[in-house]
Amino acid sequence: MHLPAWTQGIHHDGSEAFVSPSLPKLGDTVSFTLRTPSDAPIIKGYLRVMVDGEFSYTELEKVNSTEVSDYWQCERKMSQSRFDYLFLLVTDIGALYVSARGISLADTTDNASFTLIADYDAPLWVRDSVYYQIFPERFGNGDPSNDVQADEIEQFGYVSQQRTWGEDPYIWEDAGNMDFFGGDLQGITQNLDYLADLGITGIYTCPIFEAESNHKYDIVNFFHVDAHFGGDEALVELREETRKHDMTIMLDITPNHCSFRHPWVTGFKSHIDGDTSEFFFYDAEKDVFETWLGVPLLIKLNYSSQRLRDIMYRGENSAIKKWLKPPFSIDSWRLDVANMTGNLGENQLDHEVWRELRQAVRDTNSEAYILGEYFQDGTAHLQGDELDASMNYQGFNIPMRRWLVPEKKQVINTENPYHYKPSIPAEVMAEQWQNFMSAVPYTIALQQFNQLDSHDVSRILSVVYDDVELVKLGTALMMAFPGVPCLYYGTEIGMAGEKEPLNRRCMRWDETTWNHDLLDYTKQVIAIRKASHALKHGGFKVLVAEGDLIVFARESTDQTVIVVGYRGDEILEDVSLDTSQVGLVDGIELTDLISDETLKIAGGQVTIPTLRHGQTMYLETS
Amino acid sequence: MHLPAWTQGIHHDGSEAFVSPSLPKLGDTVSFTLRTPSDAPIIKGYLRVMVDGEFSYTELEKVNSTEVSDYWQCERKMSQSRFDYLFLLVTDIGALYVSARGISLADTTDNASFTLIADYDAPLWVRDSVYYQIFPERFGNGDPSNDVQADEIEQFGYVSQQRTWGEDPYIWEDAGNMDFFGGDLQGITQNLDYLADLGITGIYTCPIFEAESNHKYDIVNFFHVDAHFGGDEALVELREETRKHDMTIMLDITPNHCSFRHPWVTGFKSHIDGDTSEFFFYDAEKDVFETWLGVPLLIKLNYSSQRLRDIMYRGENSAIKKWLKPPFSIDSWRLDVANMTGNLGENQLDHEVWRELRQAVRDTNSEAYILGEYFQDGTAHLQGDELDASMNYQGFNIPMRRWLVPEKKQVINTENPYHYKPSIPAEVMAEQWQNFMSAVPYTIALQQFNQLDSHDVSRILSVVYDDVELVKLGTALMMAFPGVPCLYYGTEIGMAGEKEPLNRRCMRWDETTWNHDLLDYTKQVIAIRKASHALKHGGFKVLVAEGDLIVFARESTDQTVIVVGYRGDEILEDVSLDTSQVGLVDGIELTDLISDETLKIAGGQVTIPTLRHGQTMYLETS
Repeated sequence: MHLPAWTQGIHHDGSEAFVSPSLPKLGDTVSFTLRTPSDAPIIKGYLRVMVDGEFSYTELEKVNSTEVSDYWQCERKMSQSRFDYLFLLVTDIGALYVSARGISLADTTDNASFTLIADYDAPLWVRDSVYYQIFPERFGNGDPSNDVQADEIEQFGYVSQQRTWGEDPYIWEDAGNMDFFGGDLQGITQNLDYLADLGITGIYTCPIFEAESNHKYDIVNFFHVDAHFGGDEALVELREETRKHDMTIMLDITPNHCSFRHPWVTGFKSHIDGDTSEFFFYDAEKDVFETWLGVPLLIKLNYSSQRLRDIMYRGENSAIKKWLKPPFSIDSWRLDVANMTGNLGENQLDHEVWRELRQAVRDTNSEAYILGEYFQDGTAHLQGDELDASMNYQGFNIPMRRWLVPEKKQVINTENPYHYKPSIPAEVMAEQWQNFMSAVPYTIALQQFNQLDSHDVSRILSVVYDDVELVKLGTALMMAFPGVPCLYYGTEIGMAGEKEPLNRRCMRWDETTWNHDLLDYTKQVIAIRKASHALKHGGFKVLVAEGDLIVFARESTDQTVIVVGYRGDEILEDVSLDTSQVGLVDGIELTDLISDETLKIAGGQVTIPTLRHGQTMYLETS
Repeated sequence: MHLPAWTQGIHHDGSEAFVSPSLPKLGDTVSFTLRTPSDAPIIKGYLRVMVDGEFSYTELEKVNSTEVSDYWQCERKMSQSRFDYLFLLVTDIGALYVSARGISLADTTDNASFTLIADYDAPLWVRDSVYYQIFPERFGNGDPSNDVQADEIEQFGYVSQQRTWGEDPYIWEDAGNMDFFGGDLQGITQNLDYLADLGITGIYTCPIFEAESNHKYDIVNFFHVDAHFGGDEALVELREETRKHDMTIMLDITPNHCSFRHPWVTGFKSHIDGDTSEFFFYDAEKDVFETWLGVPLLIKLNYSSQRLRDIMYRGENSAIKKWLKPPFSIDSWRLDVANMTGNLGENQLDHEVWRELRQAVRDTNSEAYILGEYFQDGTAHLQGDELDASMNYQGFNIPMRRWLVPEKKQVINTENPYHYKPSIPAEVMAEQWQNFMSAVPYTIALQQFNQLDSHDVSRILSVVYDDVELVKLGTALMMAFPGVPCLYYGTEIGMAGEKEPLNRRCMRWDETTWNHDLLDYTKQVIAIRKASHALKHGGFKVLVAEGDLIVFARESTDQTVIVVGYRGDEILEDVSLDTSQVGLVDGIELTDLISDETLKIAGGQVTIPTLRHGQTMYLETS
């Protein structure tokens, strides 16, 4: 049902400006705030919390009013580990329900509610992080002596080949992921100054454990760094050097599967590594193992095995714990194929495995960040007791890439539903953001892992048909979006490449090949992000989502940043934004942190004279 | 985002016309059907299922086309116990996602998906049932010799009083629920012919176990029928007589609490009934028990106690099992305060308790129907492994009552948020229906327990300010809505009464006081419901929801019923319905099963000449 315009000025999110403390302990008294437009016909309001399965109402008190807004508040003791709540407003158009999924005259289900969780051991540091994802075989060859040799490795009839840095990687059919360029951990260590200069605070590497292929997702030993990447010592050295650069390390592990060459598999019948039959799904009749999506390289692990759980994460010497401890002391785990881990047919153990894994991680490093790969909906695992974040493909990456792609140029793939991602207008992007953000506690939303591209998808520059202005737009919006931004290596210098293998090209170290304009812009928006409390910790409210234009506000207690992004081809003139919707009063000056342009609020609005193709503004209250 | 009109003709629900088999076993091949308008610019489509945590797509094949519709289909093997699925359509406006929550260009979370569950032991018989809820103390006094005597019972300073049948019950402050009119099980048994004539197939009684108050929610013995209601023998007799009338019995139990006079409580310190300390939440320092919402009458039970679980439901002699077995052999359990059972502070055991209770029930009677009381959102417990249904207050009763209430007459209570239920237009009612229906497998939606009124809320006749036409409208819509309809005793003869105690007045047996017009109408719509496969088993699609007018379709493989309800005061003329949206072609005749009026589809539409205040039409395809 169409609601009157004033309802758009009603706002609450779970951020610190609206919930205090926003990371409560069980038993804490929590204050909840709701902002409404001052001219709204609201008679009174209530906070409605599900307590012990029952609605429990607390009347809101109007605690503050400005020219444009009223602020309503109440307190509640956090009596259980999770509060699902919404606001019920008594208005002259009837009962309004203000939930995480929006504002409506219809009551709704608990899963639409705002969620506050108690005693959540949030890895708060990660909100201040800017990550950089590296595909180690292609970033830097720090030690040519450890390079894979020609014919050294064979897989499925393909033998290893040495390639020359900078050549295009071969497609699978031609090389079977057996073409090697020599990248290694030393190549990362030696380039930390570059990353520090860019503003990076966290390194995220694709797998580095013993494995045969160039991507190393086919792990044969979870307990050692591959010798071709420099072995365990190279990781220790990277650890020491990243510390000096104030950087954290996130490693990538494949809990869902291991290589068909893993001794657990190859020694399966001879019990070389003890009886490992229970680690897999083995069909004795056909003599075949269950694999990851039918790929014979990757053998699916079976978490009904308690022994496997001990080896992978529960035991003191487990893979998960080993790398969290000195001398490696990594800060985060990225869990590959998290979506399928533990799940096969009647065996759906994901919740159980993640709860146990979380405990194992926390017992070893109470501040480690646990990130799961979900191309799908990971929100069921993001409720405070399993993962800290997912790779936010559905909640950020996919809708952002679909919005950024120029509609007129796009070649749409309708033959493969996985790749059918036609361009969308901003209103659809905003709706999808909302669908996924409303399904997690806001604390988790601030930790979601946002990327424009990765080793698994085409590089953003290729998605937008080489339009650097759109890459800048996407980068700036990512830096301003709730969650943790992560660059994919080389995107900042203008590297292009379709998925795979051209998205895994070698890093270009010849600065004359760089797009310095893009690089400088990237540095600038990273620096702004790192300096802005609101961008890192603030709330989220979409103000405009119409076609080529997206405007959202990030708001913390003392600072608001209105983020404006424009993808259109033509100059857009005189864009008026209703700043009263975010509680800003007349006379406030807004400064674009990118261009230094200053605008003044008057008549409850601010007017942006012009917006050009690909422009982002970070309009900050001074 | 506003979608083009043709998208409204896209339809799928989990009913048998669209999913076959709609109650699959694990491993079954299931066929999924989607209907789209024949002129829709749809290029192709896919079913997207979450399988082992991964998107799995199956292309749809266009298997049939009519003048107005295309039918798309695919098959999938049910490889796990739950399929969350949606449809992805390739169209000229982009990628359309068809989920249980609607149609959108934005992708969405799993909880918006359609859900199909395997191996669900559905109590299918319940879909054919029409229930009748009885407050036993007020329905019929079949045996005056067992009546509660004056001064026989005392509670909180109130002593029992004998009242004369037909007088208004006293409010709590005056009588403390100690005024008794003499109703008993014999009074039900003796009136089964009346219920059979009405068309009732299931009796649902408020608690009948040993208890002191007139409502008997303060149970002191879960293992015996109260002597004032005729004792266990009276239930055996009721069982025998209901069998002769082809009626089932549902009893009401309070797993959340017992009376403060229960021996477990009174003998707490002296261990009269063994050590029952673990059955409660007892604060030794203050010497107080945790109660239900602070009511000292009702002492909260603690399901961390394994012994309590054994006594209440797990043991062979448990309360839950006893009454399911001969000679009582009840068919269903209604679980009072299901929403709070097992939940207190850090103790949130509801899922665990319901899973165990389901097992206990199923072990005793594999077809029993398990109904939980939820005034809130019970959908988390309605996924096939806990409860079969909830009292569908949020998904049917509340929005229906808010729609039926005449807006102009309504006195709105803004002082108590529990009672703040202002009138809503049909679009809000439909939105709330959708919110709750989309959160459960459709099989469960067909079992949800729908009432217009109950012992806990004001009678519907009082809600609508004595407008009998609106009671007829509500009754007819309830009979046509997905789920199991239940009348509250006396509503069919025109009894009124605000909550409580006037909603618990004595049944009027003097037929001269009856509203025979309402009674006849109620019989008619019950009879139609019972004879209509579509109304009992069909799908659900809202066609019109605008202010005073609601139109929805119930569709089974061979039959469609378009249900039209109108609450407006003025005659509404020439209402055109787009019948192509439910796949009906020109030339089909629709017969109103209530008025016998016949209408013919032409030009993709049917036009209803007039609708009068309170009118319902059941337009059935012949």
